[in-house]
Amino acid sequence: MKYNFGAGPGILPHEVLKQAAEAVIDFNRTGLSLLEISHRSPEFEAVLDEAVSLVKELFGVPEGYSVLFLQGGASTQFALAPYNLLPEGGKAAYLESGVWANKALKEAKFFGDVEVVATSKESNFTYIPKDYTIPADAAYFHITSNNTIYGTQMQEFPKSPIPLVCDMSSDIFSRTVNVADFGLIYAGAQKNMGPAGVTLVIVKDDLLGKTGRKIPAMLNYQVQIEGGSMYNTPPCFAIYVSMLTLKWLKAKGGVPAIEVENNEKAKALYAEIDINPLFKAVAKDEDRSRMNVCFVAENPEHEKPFLKLCDEKGIVGLKGHRSVGGFRASIYNALPLSSVNVLIDTMQEFAEKNK
Amino acid sequence: MKYNFGAGPGILPHEVLKQAAEAVIDFNRTGLSLLEISHRSPEFEAVLDEAVSLVKELFGVPEGYSVLFLQGGASTQFALAPYNLLPEGGKAAYLESGVWANKALKEAKFFGDVEVVATSKESNFTYIPKDYTIPADAAYFHITSNNTIYGTQMQEFPKSPIPLVCDMSSDIFSRTVNVADFGLIYAGAQKNMGPAGVTLVIVKDDLLGKTGRKIPAMLNYQVQIEGGSMYNTPPCFAIYVSMLTLKWLKAKGGVPAIEVENNEKAKALYAEIDINPLFKAVAKDEDRSRMNVCFVAENPEHEKPFLKLCDEKGIVGLKGHRSVGGFRASIYNALPLSSVNVLIDTMQEFAEKNK
Repeated sequence: MKYNFGAGPGILPHEVLKQAAEAVIDFNRTGLSLLEISHRSPEFEAVLDEAVSLVKELFGVPEGYSVLFLQGGASTQFALAPYNLLPEGGKAAYLESGVWANKALKEAKFFGDVEVVATSKESNFTYIPKDYTIPADAAYFHITSNNTIYGTQMQEFPKSPIPLVCDMSSDIFSRTVNVADFGLIYAGAQKNMGPAGVTLVIVKDDLLGKTGRKIPAMLNYQVQIEGGSMYNTPPCFAIYVSMLTLKWLKAKGGVPAIEVENNEKAKALYAEIDINPLFKAVAKDEDRSRMNVCFVAENPEHEKPFLKLCDEKGIVGLKGHRSVGGFRASIYNALPLSSVNVLIDTMQEFAEKNK
Repeated sequence: MKYNFGAGPGILPHEVLKQAAEAVIDFNRTGLSLLEISHRSPEFEAVLDEAVSLVKELFGVPEGYSVLFLQGGASTQFALAPYNLLPEGGKAAYLESGVWANKALKEAKFFGDVEVVATSKESNFTYIPKDYTIPADAAYFHITSNNTIYGTQMQEFPKSPIPLVCDMSSDIFSRTVNVADFGLIYAGAQKNMGPAGVTLVIVKDDLLGKTGRKIPAMLNYQVQIEGGSMYNTPPCFAIYVSMLTLKWLKAKGGVPAIEVENNEKAKALYAEIDINPLFKAVAKDEDRSRMNVCFVAENPEHEKPFLKLCDEKGIVGLKGHRSVGGFRASIYNALPLSSVNVLIDTMQEFAEKNK
């Protein structure tokens, strides 16, 4: 038995993996693999339609928004957001809350001016910058809802006079969000939604077509909307597994139900980190992520033996990102509370042994 | 038993599907699914390394070329080729041999001037244009090696005074090619290499960095080369299945061996079409594709009953593209000669019944 705390591609529900494996051999008793059927077949079109419907239903996507399944990861959206939303000669505002936010704003510079309204770079991104003014003359304000590497998360979203653009790669579907507050939401699937290879984009339709820019087809949200995410062959298998994961989430009671579980998991783990004399949390208290729990050993010499003990217990993926060090427990939707309890027990056992 | 003649996503070898399904549950006895392990894990890095090595070995990729596994399909490469190779104010030359070639040249117009050196549009692309002059002052000459919709294929590649850029989506790894004759080769995986969701790019390194253009990271071949196809999270599963398919191809004797089989399959099927009084081929004789065999019923009223008989025999995916009509038998690498023989038998049975 493995307890998968990896930061991503991350844990998926066991029943989803079972169905996905079956579909690789024989999809819906068609006698064909899902990997070798046409994306224009009624069987696959039903998969894509269901995936879109589930996103709309589970995330409460209002009228006037389009839901797309694209390729290229969030890193491609770093470029497509300004390509599609930033007018020629215009300006975009960015909140620099981590290295992914930094990569996003660098891509925007290919398309116009960038104003960084605030940064927490000086503290190695251990907190979410607050107390900033969003420039009303910018085309949009870009934020990162959860910073996987540093274990920080926006507990609430800023009120913005301009459209909010949000990279939700590492906490989408983990908590209720008012989609109407956003102009554009995007997320690589491989943390909370499915496998690597597909990216969810939720875009407010009336923001499009206003840049004065000509955009190649595959990079153009409008073209992708018109093609229903099938301007060309989509990543069928990754969409299918995402659909299964969304179905699993729905059966669990949807986003509000998983949010309760996620809060329980995070609360239990942070409580142990705070009480255990051998460990301490990395992120500022008020900005602690409920998806990626970053912590370090008070005594650096404890790092290796603790990882060794975790390994013996079947706990995998716990090593922190190289830029932060220590440990990172990613406790995505599919990770059960029981796995968090195994980690907590292991921390306690380690503390006992090292008294 | 199904005989899958679908044009793509197309047939994959049964043993590849079996291994892929196993990896979705437990990858290489790690106790984890391939879908939920880090792309930076030694286990996945070995997959990507092997995929790159197999491409180099099986396709004879010379020194000075990079092999990339990217996202977004060939349609994304329609834009990335000019983005990366066409200098500001420069010109690119295109051969218009089908609708995909047409889409490719339309994308190039976002980045510079386009000269269409020849087209077969007037005949609905039933042949490959020849007798044209490649302009020596263009940055590159773009061709489509095989036109899936019309069943035409370049039997030999033009001698070009400028770098050749080739969309090989529907015939890559089906025949030996001298890679050194090309500046850039790209191919969506979902016909001869793997599932939808990954695109192979083989690019000559010294062509890059010469456009004077600033290119966003994910759209920049140079950045992707430096990142070893892992600038961000790659489409791990699609790469894995491609790697398995390439391994299968190697075990079969590689590209020269599959080319012999492909020639046999095509020869047998075209022979039946030519001799059977009820059917006729669509493409010009000398340009007939060995991957997509397009044919029509001499009597249009035979179309539906023939498809019905095929359905009864387990033959699927035979309906022609709407812009051509009739039938299209895609006989990709993974389709065995025995399946072609089932189709031939069915054509003969149909002719007997309709004498």
